[in-house]
Amino acid sequence: MTDLLWQKPGVRVDQRIQQFCAGDDVILDREFFLFDIRASAAHAEGLQRIGILSTDELAAIRRELDVLADDFRAGTFVLDDRYEDGHSAIEARLVERLGDTGRRIHTGRSRNDQVLVATRLWLKDRLATLQSLCGEVAGVALERAQAERDMPLPGYTHLQRAVVSSLGMWWAAWAEGFVDNAMRARDTLAWVDANPLGSAAGYGVNLPLDRDHTTAALGFGRLQVAATYAQLSRGKFELAAIEALSSAVLDLRRLAWDLSLFTSAEFGFVALPSQYTTGSSIMPNKRNPDVIELMRASYASVAAGRAEVEHLLSLPSGYHRDLQFSKGAIFHAFGRGLGALGLLPDLLRNLEWKPDAMRAALDPSMYATDLAVDLAREGKPFRDAYREAADPARWSGGDPAASLTARVSPGAAGDLRLDVLRERLSALID
Amino acid sequence: MTDLLWQKPGVRVDQRIQQFCAGDDVILDREFFLFDIRASAAHAEGLQRIGILSTDELAAIRRELDVLADDFRAGTFVLDDRYEDGHSAIEARLVERLGDTGRRIHTGRSRNDQVLVATRLWLKDRLATLQSLCGEVAGVALERAQAERDMPLPGYTHLQRAVVSSLGMWWAAWAEGFVDNAMRARDTLAWVDANPLGSAAGYGVNLPLDRDHTTAALGFGRLQVAATYAQLSRGKFELAAIEALSSAVLDLRRLAWDLSLFTSAEFGFVALPSQYTTGSSIMPNKRNPDVIELMRASYASVAAGRAEVEHLLSLPSGYHRDLQFSKGAIFHAFGRGLGALGLLPDLLRNLEWKPDAMRAALDPSMYATDLAVDLAREGKPFRDAYREAADPARWSGGDPAASLTARVSPGAAGDLRLDVLRERLSALID
Amino acid sequence: MTDLLWQKPGVRVDQRIQQFCAGDDVILDREFFLFDIRASAAHAEGLQRIGILSTDELAAIRRELDVLADDFRAGTFVLDDRYEDGHSAIEARLVERLGDTGRRIHTGRSRNDQVLVATRLWLKDRLATLQSLCGEVAGVALERAQAERDMPLPGYTHLQRAVVSSLGMWWAAWAEGFVDNAMRARDTLAWVDANPLGSAAGYGVNLPLDRDHTTAALGFGRLQVAATYAQLSRGKFELAAIEALSSAVLDLRRLAWDLSLFTSAEFGFVALPSQYTTGSSIMPNKRNPDVIELMRASYASVAAGRAEVEHLLSLPSGYHRDLQFSKGAIFHAFGRGLGALGLLPDLLRNLEWKPDAMRAALDPSMYATDLAVDLAREGKPFRDAYREAADPARWSGGDPAASLTARVSPGAAGDLRLDVLRERLSALID
Amino acid sequence: MTDLLWQKPGVRVDQRIQQFCAGDDVILDREFFLFDIRASAAHAEGLQRIGILSTDELAAIRRELDVLADDFRAGTFVLDDRYEDGHSAIEARLVERLGDTGRRIHTGRSRNDQVLVATRLWLKDRLATLQSLCGEVAGVALERAQAERDMPLPGYTHLQRAVVSSLGMWWAAWAEGFVDNAMRARDTLAWVDANPLGSAAGYGVNLPLDRDHTTAALGFGRLQVAATYAQLSRGKFELAAIEALSSAVLDLRRLAWDLSLFTSAEFGFVALPSQYTTGSSIMPNKRNPDVIELMRASYASVAAGRAEVEHLLSLPSGYHRDLQFSKGAIFHAFGRGLGALGLLPDLLRNLEWKPDAMRAALDPSMYATDLAVDLAREGKPFRDAYREAADPARWSGGDPAASLTARVSPGAAGDLRLDVLRERLSALID
Repeated sequence: MTDLLWQKPGVRVDQRIQQFCAGDDVILDREFFLFDIRASAAHAEGLQRIGILSTDELAAIRRELDVLADDFRAGTFVLDDRYEDGHSAIEARLVERLGDTGRRIHTGRSRNDQVLVATRLWLKDRLATLQSLCGEVAGVALERAQAERDMPLPGYTHLQRAVVSSLGMWWAAWAEGFVDNAMRARDTLAWVDANPLGSAAGYGVNLPLDRDHTTAALGFGRLQVAATYAQLSRGKFELAAIEALSSAVLDLRRLAWDLSLFTSAEFGFVALPSQYTTGSSIMPNKRNPDVIELMRASYASVAAGRAEVEHLLSLPSGYHRDLQFSKGAIFHAFGRGLGALGLLPDLLRNLEWKPDAMRAALDPSMYATDLAVDLAREGKPFRDAYREAADPARWSGGDPAASLTARVSPGAAGDLRLDVLRERLSALID
Repeated sequence: MTDLLWQKPGVRVDQRIQQFCAGDDVILDREFFLFDIRASAAHAEGLQRIGILSTDELAAIRRELDVLADDFRAGTFVLDDRYEDGHSAIEARLVERLGDTGRRIHTGRSRNDQVLVATRLWLKDRLATLQSLCGEVAGVALERAQAERDMPLPGYTHLQRAVVSSLGMWWAAWAEGFVDNAMRARDTLAWVDANPLGSAAGYGVNLPLDRDHTTAALGFGRLQVAATYAQLSRGKFELAAIEALSSAVLDLRRLAWDLSLFTSAEFGFVALPSQYTTGSSIMPNKRNPDVIELMRASYASVAAGRAEVEHLLSLPSGYHRDLQFSKGAIFHAFGRGLGALGLLPDLLRNLEWKPDAMRAALDPSMYATDLAVDLAREGKPFRDAYREAADPARWSGGDPAASLTARVSPGAAGDLRLDVLRERLSALID
Repeated sequence: MTDLLWQKPGVRVDQRIQQFCAGDDVILDREFFLFDIRASAAHAEGLQRIGILSTDELAAIRRELDVLADDFRAGTFVLDDRYEDGHSAIEARLVERLGDTGRRIHTGRSRNDQVLVATRLWLKDRLATLQSLCGEVAGVALERAQAERDMPLPGYTHLQRAVVSSLGMWWAAWAEGFVDNAMRARDTLAWVDANPLGSAAGYGVNLPLDRDHTTAALGFGRLQVAATYAQLSRGKFELAAIEALSSAVLDLRRLAWDLSLFTSAEFGFVALPSQYTTGSSIMPNKRNPDVIELMRASYASVAAGRAEVEHLLSLPSGYHRDLQFSKGAIFHAFGRGLGALGLLPDLLRNLEWKPDAMRAALDPSMYATDLAVDLAREGKPFRDAYREAADPARWSGGDPAASLTARVSPGAAGDLRLDVLRERLSALID
Repeated sequence: MTDLLWQKPGVRVDQRIQQFCAGDDVILDREFFLFDIRASAAHAEGLQRIGILSTDELAAIRRELDVLADDFRAGTFVLDDRYEDGHSAIEARLVERLGDTGRRIHTGRSRNDQVLVATRLWLKDRLATLQSLCGEVAGVALERAQAERDMPLPGYTHLQRAVVSSLGMWWAAWAEGFVDNAMRARDTLAWVDANPLGSAAGYGVNLPLDRDHTTAALGFGRLQVAATYAQLSRGKFELAAIEALSSAVLDLRRLAWDLSLFTSAEFGFVALPSQYTTGSSIMPNKRNPDVIELMRASYASVAAGRAEVEHLLSLPSGYHRDLQFSKGAIFHAFGRGLGALGLLPDLLRNLEWKPDAMRAALDPSMYATDLAVDLAREGKPFRDAYREAADPARWSGGDPAASLTARVSPGAAGDLRLDVLRERLSALID
């Protein structure tokens, strides 16, 4: 590692301890690097506006930051353990290229607000992706709900056959679920959209930093006002972001569960294209729906990321090094969570239903509830109608299509109201 | 327990199993009971509008529901294990009082959407309380920030003395934090504000239920459209509500940590009125800040509630009895969380600072950062200024008041911008 | 509430704050009460042995403690919010009945070690129950494994049909699992079997307490030596106990999952006696396996209890009031966990298999692995044998009985080695 | 990636899906690789014993496995994404070098039991390290407890000054805590010490595998008998191992909390050698105890690993791909947890106490409990003695040395019983 910029004479260094402290921090910082560079440019602009940097110095810094970003993207600059972290790497590069001008970049800034602002921009980026993916999933679900609205599917409660349902209803559930998930991603993005840059180490500095400029320049929705609160929000905002992600992956877990059952031989309702399956090392006959299982399992990784951040935060106010471990946690959670969600739209588009198996699973008893309600509509008190319909002698079966058409309560097969969901969706994805 | 309304002949009953299944469900349902009654009235209105109930029947049902609610509030009706759950108790009462009319109330409804709508109304109520309490905390913090804005307080990072800070900054952190928490409570309330009533057991019914009426009558912001999604949202919406609560209690935990340290003899920055302390059974000299510690500990109960719901939800779609355990979980989380937050405004109003101790804890070294930035403002590259200010010979101390006045970056002691926070707050508490 | 024994003059009391602090503590203490009484007797014996109590005083205290225990069991003494907690109730009773003698009982003791020892005895009791229940489950599983060893059952991986399996193999899995769970309960019991009584508030006292006597009198395996460690072990030992419980309930969750699938119409492998099922409030045709689902869900409650304790423990050493919340957490976890496990042996005894459905689910492809291994045994390299057996033309089916008999790897259907498991079990339950 | 060994014709491949499924699996497998090789050798020996491999073939396989292990250690063989996973890499190498002989290695084995056995060996290795590190920590604590037994230290409860304590007592707490942690590591190691090799895909094979040989050859304490249970134990055993780790890191978290307070200026009880501290990027005056904070934070990573495994396991029996994600989870938990514990012995050896600050923090009120007990010993009922000692007029202070000498309850300063702890420790570290 290069010399630490803030190293002091007389301080002993122990490789093993340094390794423990640094961990894989600099590797993790690759995720943040472009955001850190962008925020560094905004910070420099702010410094120029209050006279700490000259116009020329600002121009030089912006140019070198652009070059660094290009080099990083091109792979000609590699962020690795030659640096303590990404923040030091940026400053070191500017010092190397610009000398004293580079040595001015950290004026009025701490690594504390530097990592805060980079994290914030990263979270916003991921939440926008989350919103967009949820919208896409909802879109696919709406399309298929429309196209397959009348295809009968057994409706279950307690995994027991209950009433006749339809693919229209099944798809509509996921459509509305992912509309809600997109809504939550949007709300969470707005909630975390506050600029911490300029809070320094949590107590501000004796310079009139132009925080309104950096807020606008970085596209933040509001200023995170209190310098002390900027520190308190570390981890807190990460948790909110993971929780928004978690909401979507929770639905994904249940969807994957449905598909896991539906692809079993016993249900046999759906087939997966072969690219979604894998073989066994010992059993020549197997094609396994691994993708679906890993989608389901992704919830565990999101939960792990959340747990890691949560357990760090039993602390007094002010910065503590504990918070460093929140970085890997959000990368793990979003990496797995968005990875799984990213495959979902195509998977949903490619599901091949098996209508015969679905029809075959409609028991005669599954019309009993319709019967009870029919009797109630004709005037019999429902509780009496229920008892009458509970007699297996009355379970003579029925016509699935007629049952679905008659299911006219709003949101049921006979009145799906997909247009309402379409409207909500379009308000989220423009 | 009275006969189950849906009991069938020939089914054996085992007390131990029934006890396991019922658990303390009917006791828990006390929390929901008034909401369940209210939703039952709306459901009855809907049934009248589609001709299932006559006007007279509706009037009778509304009257009896009102009486039941009054009896419950007065304690003359006790919801206990004579009933399987609160839902059955309502139906049983209506049948007892109104005969066949009572036997019609469950037409087009399942206990599934009945518990969903009661839970939803309960969650909305608690989130409104959360929003209001967070607003109150923020208000107290803003007042004290204004009043004590110039009182110096050591600023810490890593629990090490860092720079001179102020009570103004300390209070501003909590003010902004709880403004954000109120915002999140509001957003979450809006997110869960969807009416599940009319989804029946998750597949709707063959009746044109007037769900738009019940949505309006119960004050919901939108219809939860897909009957299948109503079931999927059970637990999912509870999690979101607990997470909003958790955000506030997370800040409370850190605030309690600060106070736990500040009330120690070593810090000695603050005194608690005696009603916030308790004695020891063995040590005659002790007065302990138990209230603060239990506030801090409340986070654990919120986290437990969240964990309980989360672990229930690895399921395929459709209702499963597992979901029943989500009830106790939200009561536990909100009981403890709102209990702790409810005591916070008064506690904050009553804190007695000890300015002498706070001043005595300001080390001469705590002006070094100001010095480094001063040198940078005068033209020295910051990295060089930093090295110069790192020389202990330069740590001659300073004047706290001057240091705070000069800390003019927005959000720091010299420019707290409390007005911005006040504006945000007033937008949340009208 | 009666006067607090340690209340001091001049201390203001606020009902709302007291209520928050007390919570439902005294109600929870009912769980501990008999253990607390027992430990109080041992403490009194110790005091007599070092001359703090006379022989007569000890006799009086033991008599009154016995009476109190009897009254509590009989319901003539009710532990309720007249008392701050169970500890105070015991002391108050002794003072009321014995005057000055009663006022000596708390000599050399703090509520800190009093609650520690009561908790420890309670945990030991519950872990013994856990060990015993796990042993009983393993016993039932072994019996049925023996009785139904040759009944074919499809073997799944990824919920896909894989190879022919047997009920013998299915039962053997649970048998060995619960033998391991019983082993862990036993080891954990031994680990927590350390006597904290005599550590006072964590720093001991200036009396030569006879801790070796109380260790023996209360049946502890060892002395918890360091007074300071006794405090550190609060929560830590609770976690270990919950984790041992969690191991068993984890297996129960998977077992319940199997049964949830097997009782679905699609699998149809097993039927539950009617007392294990419940009806629906709207669907007259339903019988739902609620017991199985609540067993599965019990894991969530155990996890919640664990989470609650875990989140309390980010603290410096020494007692903190935060720890009080660990009480409700262990009651919740063990209440739900042991409640579910307690129903398991009978449930397992009562499962009614449906051999026809199980046989019908054996696909011809499920013999492909056997074929591949057969080819390998005859000399073909396995990787070549695998490719040959992967040809669907080779999947002509087979005889389940022959397949099971030939599956002779130890622990497979042809060589179950139930005797090994029986031996391990008998070492745990004598 | 090389061709999958079990790839079939006609199966489409999608890079994005494959990438999602593979994840960083092959990189993670580097942790397992040497254990996998070792278990492969034992499997080959077993195959030779039942006639599947000739003596020459076995010799060739052993030789090539040794070479592969050497190449891997030397870095001349790199396990990377040319392979699907470590298991495939081993088989591919053997096929490449030995042709048909290599193609026999997977006879009677599945990747399922292959990863199980490698994981099991890895867990045993890590638990042994855990036991050894805990023993080392306890040893250091015992030495310092002996050496500094009479140095006074304030004893706290609720972070409030309570009674006079000593470094002897403080160290003894950690000594006994880590003895217990070592005990738990040992018990857990014994619990997971069961051989899953030979269970194939969970249903065994039609070969009389010599599982007793592989059990002995790999040093396992017992056979994991039921092939079906081997699968059920995946994740379950990982959880137990993480929980044993968690117990130690929980104590570490509390120890780090103590040190975090003690190194603050307000307490000022201890100094850290400079290699345990770091500087600030903005504040020239700071030396921060980052190592201590990261030790404290390590608990969060252990908790995250546990959460990840736990959330994967809500599944029916049999293998599911979800379980793959348990690998990264245990690496993360043990990586961080053992990393932190590994630095602890030296840190403890290097703590520099500041006796003056510790003495200065002894308040006169801290002798009140001693006084109350003194009065009780002289015959006054304790509750009366307590009231008398609660009078601040009686708090005239005292002599710390005398107070500690008089604290003779076993496990307190006057009777530390370190020899008992030493005995327990030596039973664990032979």
